[in-house]
Amino acid sequence: MFESAELEHKIDKATYRRGEPKLREALLNAQYDLKVNGRFPVLILIAGVEGAGKGETVNLLNEWMDPRHIYTHAFPERSDEERERPPLWRFWRALPPKGRIGVFFGAWHTYPVVARVRGEIGEAEFSQHIAEILRFEKMLSDEGVLLLKYWFHLSRGQQKARLKALERDPRTRWKVTDLEWKYFKLYKKFVRICEPFLRRTSTGEAPWIVIPGADPLYRALSVGRHLLAAMRERLDEKPVERLPDKNPPMPEAIDRRDVINSLELDQPMTRDRYQKELEKWQGRLNLAARHPRFRRISVVAVFEGNDAAGKGGAIRRVTQALDARSYFNVSVAAPTEEERAQPYLWRFWRHIPRRGRFTIFDRSWYGRVLVERVEGFCKEPDWMRAYKEINDFEQALTRHNIVVVKFWLAISKEEQMKRFKLREKVAFKRFKITEEDWRNRKKWDAYERAVCDMVDRTSTSIAPWTLVEANNKYYARVKVLRTLTRAVEAALKRVKQEG
Amino acid sequence: MFESAELEHKIDKATYRRGEPKLREALLNAQYDLKVNGRFPVLILIAGVEGAGKGETVNLLNEWMDPRHIYTHAFPERSDEERERPPLWRFWRALPPKGRIGVFFGAWHTYPVVARVRGEIGEAEFSQHIAEILRFEKMLSDEGVLLLKYWFHLSRGQQKARLKALERDPRTRWKVTDLEWKYFKLYKKFVRICEPFLRRTSTGEAPWIVIPGADPLYRALSVGRHLLAAMRERLDEKPVERLPDKNPPMPEAIDRRDVINSLELDQPMTRDRYQKELEKWQGRLNLAARHPRFRRISVVAVFEGNDAAGKGGAIRRVTQALDARSYFNVSVAAPTEEERAQPYLWRFWRHIPRRGRFTIFDRSWYGRVLVERVEGFCKEPDWMRAYKEINDFEQALTRHNIVVVKFWLAISKEEQMKRFKLREKVAFKRFKITEEDWRNRKKWDAYERAVCDMVDRTSTSIAPWTLVEANNKYYARVKVLRTLTRAVEAALKRVKQEG
Repeated sequence: MFESAELEHKIDKATYRRGEPKLREALLNAQYDLKVNGRFPVLILIAGVEGAGKGETVNLLNEWMDPRHIYTHAFPERSDEERERPPLWRFWRALPPKGRIGVFFGAWHTYPVVARVRGEIGEAEFSQHIAEILRFEKMLSDEGVLLLKYWFHLSRGQQKARLKALERDPRTRWKVTDLEWKYFKLYKKFVRICEPFLRRTSTGEAPWIVIPGADPLYRALSVGRHLLAAMRERLDEKPVERLPDKNPPMPEAIDRRDVINSLELDQPMTRDRYQKELEKWQGRLNLAARHPRFRRISVVAVFEGNDAAGKGGAIRRVTQALDARSYFNVSVAAPTEEERAQPYLWRFWRHIPRRGRFTIFDRSWYGRVLVERVEGFCKEPDWMRAYKEINDFEQALTRHNIVVVKFWLAISKEEQMKRFKLREKVAFKRFKITEEDWRNRKKWDAYERAVCDMVDRTSTSIAPWTLVEANNKYYARVKVLRTLTRAVEAALKRVKQEG
Repeated sequence: MFESAELEHKIDKATYRRGEPKLREALLNAQYDLKVNGRFPVLILIAGVEGAGKGETVNLLNEWMDPRHIYTHAFPERSDEERERPPLWRFWRALPPKGRIGVFFGAWHTYPVVARVRGEIGEAEFSQHIAEILRFEKMLSDEGVLLLKYWFHLSRGQQKARLKALERDPRTRWKVTDLEWKYFKLYKKFVRICEPFLRRTSTGEAPWIVIPGADPLYRALSVGRHLLAAMRERLDEKPVERLPDKNPPMPEAIDRRDVINSLELDQPMTRDRYQKELEKWQGRLNLAARHPRFRRISVVAVFEGNDAAGKGGAIRRVTQALDARSYFNVSVAAPTEEERAQPYLWRFWRHIPRRGRFTIFDRSWYGRVLVERVEGFCKEPDWMRAYKEINDFEQALTRHNIVVVKFWLAISKEEQMKRFKLREKVAFKRFKITEEDWRNRKKWDAYERAVCDMVDRTSTSIAPWTLVEANNKYYARVKVLRTLTRAVEAALKRVKQEG
């Protein structure tokens, strides 16, 4: 993996001076085209061994191109706001928007590599991290991010020489602290861990590019030319003849029985019973949310359902039980401009709650496999891969002690008609019924199909779907409250056992 | 101030039941109209004594209206990301966008009142806080925020009775802890502090509305009806006949001498000298930025100037001296959709750096009094008040140990022509020259006027403007570096003295 990089690569100043101005001009042009094109972001990861010129390269990129459209981020100690979210959160919040270049100085690879070198994690956990990285990077690529991963390498001898040289120069002496020498002693171990890491996280779309770090001029031209070529290739992309997308069709049940039409949507619940159950479960939810251990978890509740199925009413019965300080409602409508410039999960990641808090999503990331699929807002390969991306997302949440609870509120077509008509009559409900609702109704069957596929593919043991029979609002609300409460109580128990 | 509120206000259930459905319907309609209108946000502050129904009211608002468009925020302990920014930052990041309702459960009034009651701050500092609150709220009002401040009051007897009642009920017992009784003992002191606080922070646009908190039904209808009336008034606003805006004209110098045309724009600096000075100041800046005490301050550097005056080049000479991990460039162009839905300073507040970091603004909030003024993008009263708002903003920064450095890079009209022509020739500079640059040039005099007014009104001892004679790029870059370095060095000295 590092063989080529350890050769003594060198160019003389004259060669550099001939090459640099042209490269710089071309990079600046590419950056300009990227901005005008505006259809994808470039994300550059800078990694590798100490003293191999990572910082210098980042400065150089900022110097060659227009620094106003480059977003450089480093990731030192996590802040408390970051520690309260899953590890990937800090990278999501720093992603460059379309048309821009982001430079990540250290990124999601840093922690697993360093922790493995220090022996803080074992091989199994290391593998888990690698798998997570692969999934995350695949998602970025599929979302159109041009991901370029540069690994700056030095041989052991080169690293030693480099540190010594830095120490000798009074202007750079500060760069070499005890820490650098400590890392130097770990060189062999570091390389032994990195080599398989690079191999395992190099994919067709996002391979690691190893840069020989010893000669500053060689290094600079290498990175610059590769970056240029990669940007140009994507910018000048012409449509090519390809095999058709190869997503297999989803199976259809031969007897037309599905998880939705098998539901008994009319469930009994009298008003009296409802009042009692409501009080009981709201009380228990309230108690759970005020439990001291609740500060160690958080809750993401997702409400999806047919139009007029009573999502708003159910959400209100939940929030009634909670202190207003502890929840945040996210109503998902059309994405904003800043959200459209990011991978589609970005707008949900930004609302992941801190510890001890609820985020309640009225509609959610499942829009991708429901409305976007049915209305054709995204292509089949995009919603097909979304099932996996969503499962990965929810796994990242649950692994961080975030309780994920998902409700599908189902009503019958007849019940919906009744409610639509009622809404049109009652003045203060008038804004709950729009032309769109009537349009959606015409695609009832397509939606039902999409819902069934969604449940089949994303109802997992860590984040199961709860199908709520909702023709009777009382029954539906109680079922929502009971399910949510039990999930929170179970999580409180779990963190207790974990100590 | 609290006389009316301490009367025994009460309504019976029957009255409430007659009034509530209508009120609810009207509120829901108002909320819908607000969303459609989309021209202003509503920000509701909830404050007052313990046990007076603040939490219940917030829940009620979420129940009466559509909670999907209400953003409720509480402000407990500040996170470390918040502590590293000025105190107002956490409120800026929580402001509701236009068309939405924000509910702040406790806000900028909480700290000064509580600190004063506890005796942690004296009368002088309390007054300072009040002055800052007045300025901040005026800015919000001027920016179109409908700010509604509700103060929930109980007499001492009412508070005692309320706490006892809560304690008796097993379902609410948890609400009364030792802390509540501790606060109760401070009741008299609390009211003695609050009374003048409310008086001094009540203005024509944003008076405190005192709500009698003893009777839940009375309280609910009071808040609801007031909120409705306030929203309706703003939503139904008809143009009225008014006196013309009364901003006095800005004085003009009789001899036509101004701070810009008095500059000697051609300053000598040879290439040799430049290389030496550059190295010297970059070295010193680098040292300063790596100083251990630098972690206790942060830097906001603003670059403004004529088109083609060399802002980009100067910024690059600054970033060359810095570790790429320590700065963030913000290039100010047209605001995004999310930014347009907020007061205009919002998009700058969001980029205020954490401790130990630089944010470098290429163009800035001064667009308000430069391009927006000259091009007529905002009205005279708006840019006239901006001078004060900007001074307040920069004061909030400097008070929090953020070094604010502002550069105006000035070139002559002839020099600009030379550079424009050069840019059109050199391919890799082509995207630095646009039609707009040529258009701006035609308004040279109007811009010069605006620049002079800006300098006169916003060059303050805490955040002075540095006018940079920039016909000679070498001279300009060195002056920028020297000024910035000295400002950082002075701040390091200052925090040392503060201990």
